[in-house]
Formats: sequence, C-alpha cells, structure tokens
Amino acid sequence: MSAHPDADLHPVATGPAKAIVDAHQTEQPLKLYSGWFCPFVQRVWTVLEEKNIPYQYIEVNPYNKPKSLLDLNPRGLVPTLQYDNKPLFESTVVCEFLEEAYPDHGPHLLPKDPYDRARTRIWTDFCTSRIIPAFHRFLQFQPMSDTEGLGRVREEFLGKWKELTKEMDPTGPFFFGEEPSLIDFVIAPWVVRLWIFDHFKEGLDMGKGQEWNRLRVWMTALEERPSIKNTTSEREHYLPIYQRYADDKAQSELAKATRSGRGVP
Amino acid sequence: MSAHPDADLHPVATGPAKAIVDAHQTEQPLKLYSGWFCPFVQRVWTVLEEKNIPYQYIEVNPYNKPKSLLDLNPRGLVPTLQYDNKPLFESTVVCEFLEEAYPDHGPHLLPKDPYDRARTRIWTDFCTSRIIPAFHRFLQFQPMSDTEGLGRVREEFLGKWKELTKEMDPTGPFFFGEEPSLIDFVIAPWVVRLWIFDHFKEGLDMGKGQEWNRLRVWMTALEERPSIKNTTSEREHYLPIYQRYADDKAQSELAKATRSGRGVP
Repeated sequence: MSAHPDADLHPVATGPAKAIVDAHQTEQPLKLYSGWFCPFVQRVWTVLEEKNIPYQYIEVNPYNKPKSLLDLNPRGLVPTLQYDNKPLFESTVVCEFLEEAYPDHGPHLLPKDPYDRARTRIWTDFCTSRIIPAFHRFLQFQPMSDTEGLGRVREEFLGKWKELTKEMDPTGPFFFGEEPSLIDFVIAPWVVRLWIFDHFKEGLDMGKGQEWNRLRVWMTALEERPSIKNTTSEREHYLPIYQRYADDKAQSELAKATRSGRGVP
Repeated sequence: MSAHPDADLHPVATGPAKAIVDAHQTEQPLKLYSGWFCPFVQRVWTVLEEKNIPYQYIEVNPYNKPKSLLDLNPRGLVPTLQYDNKPLFESTVVCEFLEEAYPDHGPHLLPKDPYDRARTRIWTDFCTSRIIPAFHRFLQFQPMSDTEGLGRVREEFLGKWKELTKEMDPTGPFFFGEEPSLIDFVIAPWVVRLWIFDHFKEGLDMGKGQEWNRLRVWMTALEERPSIKNTTSEREHYLPIYQRYADDKAQSELAKATRSGRGVP
C-alpha cells in the first residue's frame, strides 16, 4: 500500500528485523517484496514467520523499484508476494492466502469455527475501514486554530480500540483466547507503532482506568510476540517517516486520502 | 448496507422474487433480514439459493425495523443473517460464511485453488472499492454546467468493467469458467441493474466493438442464472428508488458517501 513513501527513508531494516532479513536472502520460489517500515507488509511478514514458511525477503527501494516487481505488479506496491511466478497483493488477502496455500505449515491462523472466521473478516475490515483512518486522522492532525481538536481525534481513535476490545475473548491474552490468530496479526503493526503518539501527539492518554485492562493485556502480548518483535526495526528509523505524517506533509496514498477526508485507498 | 432507503418504497418483493419470498416464510433457524431491492442483500440471497440452504426470508420495513433485527444488529442494516441466534453482517463476509458453514450443501462457490480464492477476494474488493463507487458516480451525476461530465463518468465506469473483464477466463461464460462462483454472485446484483442507466442516463453506450464480447457473454450468463433472476423484482418497483439516486436526492449512506466523494461506507 506504500506507493510513495517519504524521503529520508532509511534503506534497510535495522534492529531485530535485520536478523530476519539477513536470514531470508537465499533464493526461494516464494518471494516477499517488502518495505521494512510498512505496516501492511508487516501483516504478511508476521504470518510468514508464524507459519515458518520458506520465503525470500526482497527490500524494495521505493525510488528505484526493481523490474522484477514492476513486471509482477505494475503499480509496484508493497507488499507483493510472488508465488508460483504469479503476483499476489492486498495484505489481508495475502495473509488468508498463506493460511490456505500452506495448510500444513505451522499453526492454523484462522479459527476452525466458521462463525469465528467470519468475525475475523468483519474485524479485519473494521481495522482497515475504522482503526487505520482514525490512526491517521490523529497522527496527521494539525492544531491550527482548533485547540480542542487534538483531544477530539484522540477520543475518536480510542473509541475504535474500545469497540474492538468488546469483541475479544475476556481472558485472552489474544483476540480469540490463548493462541494468536490472523486478526491479531492484521492489527498488530498499528499496535507496535502506538509509541509514535507519545513522541508526536502528547500520547494516547488512555488513563489508568480498569476499562483499558483487557486492551493492555492484548497489546503487551502482541509486543512480546517474537514474529512481531522480530519484524520491527529500530524506532529512530521510523521517526523521519512519521515526522512527515505528524507534520501532515507525507505524500503516501494513505496520507493524501486522510488529508482529503477519505479512508484507506 | 441500506441504512436509510428512500421513500416511495414498494413494501415487498414482486415478480420472480415474490415466489421465492413466499416459499421461505416458514420459521427456520437461519434467517435472512432483507430488503427486496438491496443489491447487497441479493449477493447473500443468491448464495443461499445456489447452495439450496434452508432459510427464512424476513422483509424489513426500513421505517419500522423489527425488534428482532435491532436486537441482533443495533444499526438495523440489511443484509443481516441470524445464525445459531447470533448476528452476521457485511454481505461479502456472509457469502463466504455460507460457503464455509455449509460445506456439503449445494455446489462449492469458492474455487479449490488457493490462488483463485485469493483472486476472488481481490476482485470482490475491486467490486466494492471501484465498481460500485463508479456505478454511483455515474448514476448520481448531475449535468449542471458540466455538459461533458456525463461522458466522463460513463467512461470511468466502463473502464472498471474492462479491467474486470481482463481477469476472466477467456471462454467463460462465468468469471472462472463453465461454473459460476462467488465472484460472479458478488458482482451480479449491479449487472442486473445496468438497465437503469438506459432509463436515466442515456445508456451505457458500450458500442458494438468486439472488445466487449466477453463482458456481454458474462452479463447474459448472469442475467439468465435462475438464482439471480429469481431474486429480482419487477423493474417498475426499482424505478422510484433509482429515480432519487438519478436526481442525486437519495439519502442512503452510499448515496451520501458518493455525493461527498467517498466510496462504499
């Protein structure tokens, strides 16, 4: 989904993610065209890691996209998956594809119960159509003359997390219970980026109320999950990217859509 | 998805759809809360018919929604499915759910190949995020001083169908070949409503060119499919609904989203 990432982009993964990238340089039929910083990529990347599927990691320089990617996907977006020499994109579609194409690889990431599978898809859509736009409205908010606006977009954002929390298994720690599943990995990339609001927007300000306990348990479980931790780079390299969002100067399709009042493009 | 259908609404299904409604009045554990006119409902309805799943049809008067529906789904949207006393909504999620929850009922509507299943989901999303908004931009277009605009929104709309056609099995008649599958039923409700453009907007104006042959074969196959034909009412009763769209006075969430330049809400 990152069509035009912003300038000052560190070229490669760092920190924990660097080790994973280094371990996936060998040629493989399954290839992940990636941007180390992209949360939509991280959805797919964590699923590959969770299921222990062999893949080749290919970092895409957004200013110099490899021909092999453009041949597969003329828009050159990441994540793009190359499978059997054919392209696949749209991060949530790719995640479900990996579950279906590698049924005997690693744990099953979709619940067995069809009703819970349907709930996975409903709340995946909620993440894309509600949480991510609210994340960006908060992140890209500019005070201008509207001094109370920051509180309003923060409240709106927290409200979405509250809606999501109500749907969770009461004990957890994950959405459906003890084991993580696709819905956790679909939302996790935005959870492990919440620190940017402390840095840029005076914090999430959840307060210490018990009503946030379940969400905190879930967030901690995600932050500590190896597949998520190990696909995350060092914070300092995310900063210039999110600085441009926080200043509302980012030029990604998502940034522009947010600016014009639309959702995820 | 029809939150606030427009006034002058005929209260019940007519024509071929009436017979199907009449045949599904008996109490059943699986209930479809429906609006006879709603294309999002028709997606689910055709899948129920194709798979021959026992269900109870409940027509929802949008001005007087039954408590049983509001208890299930406080927003009162149709389609809502009641399954095992639990609610399910979002038409494409419900369609996939029916395929998964009734694996031994009727034909399989998702391809076996995981790659084709992923393509089903990608082009389902294309329908929701590209075809339907372009359908409504064309339908709700008002000439005003912009006399060339109608041609522009028509061209844009036809361009989406062209993109879709490129993805189809070359022979067909259906998207993936001889047998219809979920992707056909996801888009069919908008295909069988294309006549409204002849009525309100000087037609689709496809021309007689060979480049449209494959699309025409597909559209004819959908129009003749019993599950689609039999869930369609008489044209005269759609007219007052689409008149309000064509005059850009409709108040559905989708109409309002189109007016403000957004996509499917």
